[in-house]
Amino acid sequence: MLTRIDHIGIACRDLDATVEFYRATYGFEVFHTEVNEEQGVREAMLKINETSDGGASYLQLLEPTREDSAVGKWLAKNGEGVHHIAFGTADVDGDAEAIRGKGVRVLYEQPRVGSMGSRITFLHPKDCHGVLTELVTSAPAEGAEH
Amino acid sequence: MLTRIDHIGIACRDLDATVEFYRATYGFEVFHTEVNEEQGVREAMLKINETSDGGASYLQLLEPTREDSAVGKWLAKNGEGVHHIAFGTADVDGDAEAIRGKGVRVLYEQPRVGSMGSRITFLHPKDCHGVLTELVTSAPAEGAEH
Repeated sequence: MLTRIDHIGIACRDLDATVEFYRATYGFEVFHTEVNEEQGVREAMLKINETSDGGASYLQLLEPTREDSAVGKWLAKNGEGVHHIAFGTADVDGDAEAIRGKGVRVLYEQPRVGSMGSRITFLHPKDCHGVLTELVTSAPAEGAEH
Repeated sequence: MLTRIDHIGIACRDLDATVEFYRATYGFEVFHTEVNEEQGVREAMLKINETSDGGASYLQLLEPTREDSAVGKWLAKNGEGVHHIAFGTADVDGDAEAIRGKGVRVLYEQPRVGSMGSRITFLHPKDCHGVLTELVTSAPAEGAEH
């Protein structure tokens, strides 16, 4: 079950300049940065609020590390802007399978590693009224009991 | 101060079909519907989660009521997809003025009425790295003391 807006993914040409825009304009601070070589992006997560399911909502600023990455090609076509939206769930595997069963194309056979050790998949935008939609299960919190 | 992702605004051609997609695919239910004649939109708000500032995060599905509305023109150019993002604040007037003072174009001289009796304004996407950005102060809760 999808229980939160996990993040809004925003494609930008210059990550440092965009981070600085969000800091200077709104006071949003960087919570986390990483490079995802598989996705071909350098990214910054800005935490905006916590959510009623125990998670949080972020802006995810994405700069392509190569022009032939998905985000690089998207930027060349569309320019800077909102690239995708992401919903949080405790069970990305189960939700992805259930949604696939409803005829929506799920882009990965199995969820892959996303920001901050999460597990993610994407739904085809043409099956989602034009919205590239990500499903995210956060990594277990550090120090959590297993 | 902006304290939450208030909503993601999604432009669609057929509001009823898009509401049904979000219900059937994810289980999201309609929280509120209205027509905003000034904006030229018919809209549905789907509540996704509550937020740590006492507010909530929604998807806002927007169907233009006329082709020459802002959303109608946007749809003709871009097709269905994410139209804008919105941050919640307790003080849209003060935040809009502060942001205007930083050189970001604020589209309304004074905030106007948005969804569910909120007060809203927009920031120019060209000043926000391609993202049409809304600021929202929710209406006081029904039954709240004044």
